[in-house]
Amino acid sequence: MTVYLPDGKALEVPEGATAKDIAEGIGPGLAKAAVGALVNGEVYDLMKPLPPGATLRILTEKDPEYQLLFRHTLAHVLAQAVKEFFGEKGYDPESVRLGVGPVIEKGFYYDIDAPEPLSDEDLPQIEERMREILRRDLPLRRYVLPREAALARYQGKDPYKTELILDLPETEEISFYQQGDDTYGFTDLCRGPHVPSTGRIPPHFKLTHVAGAYWRGDERRPMLQRVYGVAFRTAEELREYLWQLEEAKRRDHRRLGRELELFLIDPVVGKGLVLWLPKGNVIREELIAFMREEQVRRGYQLVTTPHIGGLELYETSGHYPYYAESQFPPIRFTEGEEAYLLKPMNCPHHIRIYAYKKRSYRELPLRLAEFGTVYRYEKAGELLGLTRVRGFTQDDAHIFCTPEEVKGEFLGVLDLVLKVFATLGLKDFRARIGTRDPGSQKYVGDEAKWALAERQIEEAALEAGLHYTLEEGDAAFYGPKLDFVVKDALGREWQLGTIQVDYNLPERFGLTYVGKDGEEHRPVMLHRAPFGSLERFIGILIEHFAGDFPLWLSPVQAVVVPVSEKQEDYALEVAGKLKEAGLRAEADTRPERMQARIRDAELQKVPYVLVVGEKEKAEGTVSVRRRHKGNLGAMPLATFLEGALKEYRERRLEPVFG
Amino acid sequence: MTVYLPDGKALEVPEGATAKDIAEGIGPGLAKAAVGALVNGEVYDLMKPLPPGATLRILTEKDPEYQLLFRHTLAHVLAQAVKEFFGEKGYDPESVRLGVGPVIEKGFYYDIDAPEPLSDEDLPQIEERMREILRRDLPLRRYVLPREAALARYQGKDPYKTELILDLPETEEISFYQQGDDTYGFTDLCRGPHVPSTGRIPPHFKLTHVAGAYWRGDERRPMLQRVYGVAFRTAEELREYLWQLEEAKRRDHRRLGRELELFLIDPVVGKGLVLWLPKGNVIREELIAFMREEQVRRGYQLVTTPHIGGLELYETSGHYPYYAESQFPPIRFTEGEEAYLLKPMNCPHHIRIYAYKKRSYRELPLRLAEFGTVYRYEKAGELLGLTRVRGFTQDDAHIFCTPEEVKGEFLGVLDLVLKVFATLGLKDFRARIGTRDPGSQKYVGDEAKWALAERQIEEAALEAGLHYTLEEGDAAFYGPKLDFVVKDALGREWQLGTIQVDYNLPERFGLTYVGKDGEEHRPVMLHRAPFGSLERFIGILIEHFAGDFPLWLSPVQAVVVPVSEKQEDYALEVAGKLKEAGLRAEADTRPERMQARIRDAELQKVPYVLVVGEKEKAEGTVSVRRRHKGNLGAMPLATFLEGALKEYRERRLEPVFG
Repeated sequence: MTVYLPDGKALEVPEGATAKDIAEGIGPGLAKAAVGALVNGEVYDLMKPLPPGATLRILTEKDPEYQLLFRHTLAHVLAQAVKEFFGEKGYDPESVRLGVGPVIEKGFYYDIDAPEPLSDEDLPQIEERMREILRRDLPLRRYVLPREAALARYQGKDPYKTELILDLPETEEISFYQQGDDTYGFTDLCRGPHVPSTGRIPPHFKLTHVAGAYWRGDERRPMLQRVYGVAFRTAEELREYLWQLEEAKRRDHRRLGRELELFLIDPVVGKGLVLWLPKGNVIREELIAFMREEQVRRGYQLVTTPHIGGLELYETSGHYPYYAESQFPPIRFTEGEEAYLLKPMNCPHHIRIYAYKKRSYRELPLRLAEFGTVYRYEKAGELLGLTRVRGFTQDDAHIFCTPEEVKGEFLGVLDLVLKVFATLGLKDFRARIGTRDPGSQKYVGDEAKWALAERQIEEAALEAGLHYTLEEGDAAFYGPKLDFVVKDALGREWQLGTIQVDYNLPERFGLTYVGKDGEEHRPVMLHRAPFGSLERFIGILIEHFAGDFPLWLSPVQAVVVPVSEKQEDYALEVAGKLKEAGLRAEADTRPERMQARIRDAELQKVPYVLVVGEKEKAEGTVSVRRRHKGNLGAMPLATFLEGALKEYRERRLEPVFG
Repeated sequence: MTVYLPDGKALEVPEGATAKDIAEGIGPGLAKAAVGALVNGEVYDLMKPLPPGATLRILTEKDPEYQLLFRHTLAHVLAQAVKEFFGEKGYDPESVRLGVGPVIEKGFYYDIDAPEPLSDEDLPQIEERMREILRRDLPLRRYVLPREAALARYQGKDPYKTELILDLPETEEISFYQQGDDTYGFTDLCRGPHVPSTGRIPPHFKLTHVAGAYWRGDERRPMLQRVYGVAFRTAEELREYLWQLEEAKRRDHRRLGRELELFLIDPVVGKGLVLWLPKGNVIREELIAFMREEQVRRGYQLVTTPHIGGLELYETSGHYPYYAESQFPPIRFTEGEEAYLLKPMNCPHHIRIYAYKKRSYRELPLRLAEFGTVYRYEKAGELLGLTRVRGFTQDDAHIFCTPEEVKGEFLGVLDLVLKVFATLGLKDFRARIGTRDPGSQKYVGDEAKWALAERQIEEAALEAGLHYTLEEGDAAFYGPKLDFVVKDALGREWQLGTIQVDYNLPERFGLTYVGKDGEEHRPVMLHRAPFGSLERFIGILIEHFAGDFPLWLSPVQAVVVPVSEKQEDYALEVAGKLKEAGLRAEADTRPERMQARIRDAELQKVPYVLVVGEKEKAEGTVSVRRRHKGNLGAMPLATFLEGALKEYRERRLEPVFG
């Protein structure tokens, strides 16, 4: 058969030739450096036979695809090490059953059904065994078995692998990879690709943690243990990643949420349902007040709608029964047809407000906004702190406008989103505009309207000076959209803020307005939520700020600490004045040492600690300590108050003092 | 047998003697004046045999009980008139079937199943027939039938009366009242009492309206038509009442809600579920902001909790399944045990927040507040605008405190409630303190705690200078309480604001705090909601103010009306400045006549209309018209702004100008 090199050169090779054969044919230097090949754009290892007519390029350790290869082999090395680990404990290594072990971003995992549960404490020992396997440089071998033989290999021993084989299409080749031999080694059902030997894996890897994972992601199937690892080409990359991981742990909003008493998720109330504790509720209310103020200034009108709606509403919108899987089941009565749905979105309610009277073009754009709490039934296994929940409050709004008004409304929303990002110090972001796939027919709304909307969105993005990419085919079936992707302080990307154009719901609900021409027309709807979900947004903010909120979002803004009980009255007086002026202030008059009280305020990440001793009391001053800025010395109370209020009211990121 | 007069005098009378016999025995004057009797505290008519040993007092037209007698007879007169009305139309009078026809406050009604639906337009004609029956002065006669004969009278003809008879206890006497004779008259199954003849009914009555009413209040039974009437002793009382009725119609919050575009109840979303339109939402948000401010000042901590909760929560609280009838059914999945309830109250969620960590007496009183939207399944027939709904937002709070702290907390809540009443001009109110029924054993919590709480509540009421009544036996089984009853501008009474002491839920949820003694103690819970439900409260406020809200609650506070289009720019500039300063202002630049624009603002009950012509534009002034105060002349814009902001921020009831 013939295969082709990247420069177009044709090579005649025997059937069943592998990339290893090709590399060796080219020269011993390349044969030694080779770790795999890119075959028709797909990563192959050196062992797998090439398809006839393939174009291939040999990969070496310099190619980024190398990571895929060694991360995959590391999953097998992990599996071998775990079997050895339990073997050493006296278990039959066959009793360690294996699910799947794929490559993921930055690393790999393996799902394991072990005779004893693994814990994070076991990982260093398993990791040590893995390093030993790398040192032994076991060669990898690929072979294929007929279906019957492959099944016979696992039947009665490993139900997971058996099921995986049974699920393979009849036509699929069933391949195995073996590292080492039967005495010291491991064989796995696997599509590959892998590095040629375990010695070709760089030692810059680390097992990070163990987590539960349902077999095939199905809550009704057994739960396996998923061992996660990360792996990089260089020690520096690993170090950088581990630092980020540590930092992410330090900033973990679930941990900070507990320590700072921000929120509570109580399984008795329900998984994924957030109870905002007083301090977290302050952040929630401040964000709502901020958004309300910005929206009112921009001509939005606020409404409030119920948390349930007649099922018919969602049948009309098309959300029921099509998305029933991700919704709480309807509320039904034992008798009668009456049924309600816990609202999974606010749009139908706002549409009913639009539709309750005849609308004229003079009323458009009509911008209806609501901090609307919606409920969606995420799978229990996917729930995560504030970022994946079952109930969340959207800073939702629906803009009803004429097709010509889309650009102006888009510009208005962009301005609002950029204001939000600037206020919160989210400086690094990009926009993605999702347009139609020109080859597809799935889109609702006529051609001319789509073209107009897409042009208007792009013009708006240009006018707003946005850095954006066009993602063809990324539009929803009901209209084009623009998403923001924001980097947080740790460099992690989050999708925040979506603006979607919708031709579908106005059609389904038969919305109209009377135009200048006296005729009825169909309005366009924009859906937009700059924060998205308040829960998720606050989760991200907690991690972005590592709990060190700017003054306006701080649950407690100032703590007054009297040096001794002699200044208790003065401390209470100061705290009282601050509160009267609208600041969230407390006096800490507990009979503890002053240093201990200052430390407690710092642990609670309170921005201002005001220490008051005899001198301050006599002079009507406060000694100001600003978090991360240290001691700023004494100043008149009025001076502090004025500055702090300015910092608060202007929602500043940086302190006015220090 | 012997009967006794009020002065204790004994009379020997034959078995079966009636009050009429007694009155005649006393003298012809009294016999003529008599309309009934008070027999052992119960109102009897002149026809019903007296029980042996009865103490009786003869009633005349001067006694208030007279109203009960003639209102009841009027219901029979109404029934007779309706039968005649349909007879005249060619129907068999027997085809007019009758439900119940009781006396109600101010009047009476009768539930009718007629061959054709009645409308309000038919009422004057029916009323005329009723007056004719009064003029004919038909005597009333009472007689008793055995059960069989009574049933035979209605069987196959009137299913309602038949059912009523079948439901009577076997021992009960089955009495009938006949007015007139078989040619011109009417007989009804009835317990009485009645006036002796239709001529004894004062002509000061009026049929007010027809409404639908399910037979026996059961939605699954047929719907009858309920014809309502009012009746008084004097023309003046009737006139006064009809004026109130007209005024109530004018103030009807459903009508005003529609005209002022405050809210929407949309059957597609769901009966009894309120959608707050932008203007109504302003009122809602202003009330919330007011309450939030007052609560934060009083040391409440705000929380936010989900609108659903695990069913277990309500099983523990005792609200499920015991109150399941008045709740939406649980949200259940087709598989598994998981189930949620749309929260019918906020207490269990707040309790979980209390309980999530160990509490010390130092943290008490802990006051958790939430504007929490709850859902209860009121019967469809009982829903009414904003005052009886299925979803409502409570200005809820739960105070967790030690038993000794109850009085202090009560005083704090009373102060808050009085602040609410004063701010809204609700000057006429009274308090009711509900205490234990000393004879009953149904109460939760120990004797000493009850005694302490009751004493503390009464002391608090005294200290707050409240006008209160003690209602023995009116406490809930879980603790004593205090209710406020408030009179609105029309003199109608509303129950607003409840404070309840609760020993039950802390027990059921096993709440504790560590006391000064280091031991665990059970806290007491106070439930309180000064507004109660925001929906109901706003409904009452709309009627109280007849839609003429004080400035701070007005959806639009000022409309700027340019005299001609030459002042359009100036009008927009003025409106812009007002908005920037935080007022809800608009410029009305429509091409309509100035008078028409002023009238529109008045129809929308906008407090300030600022007219700007050339003179105002040149001088930087505005001509101010204050609703109900008229034209106040021109003033510098800054002067107006300062005054209006003062009026707004101080939540004044009366204008600062005029």
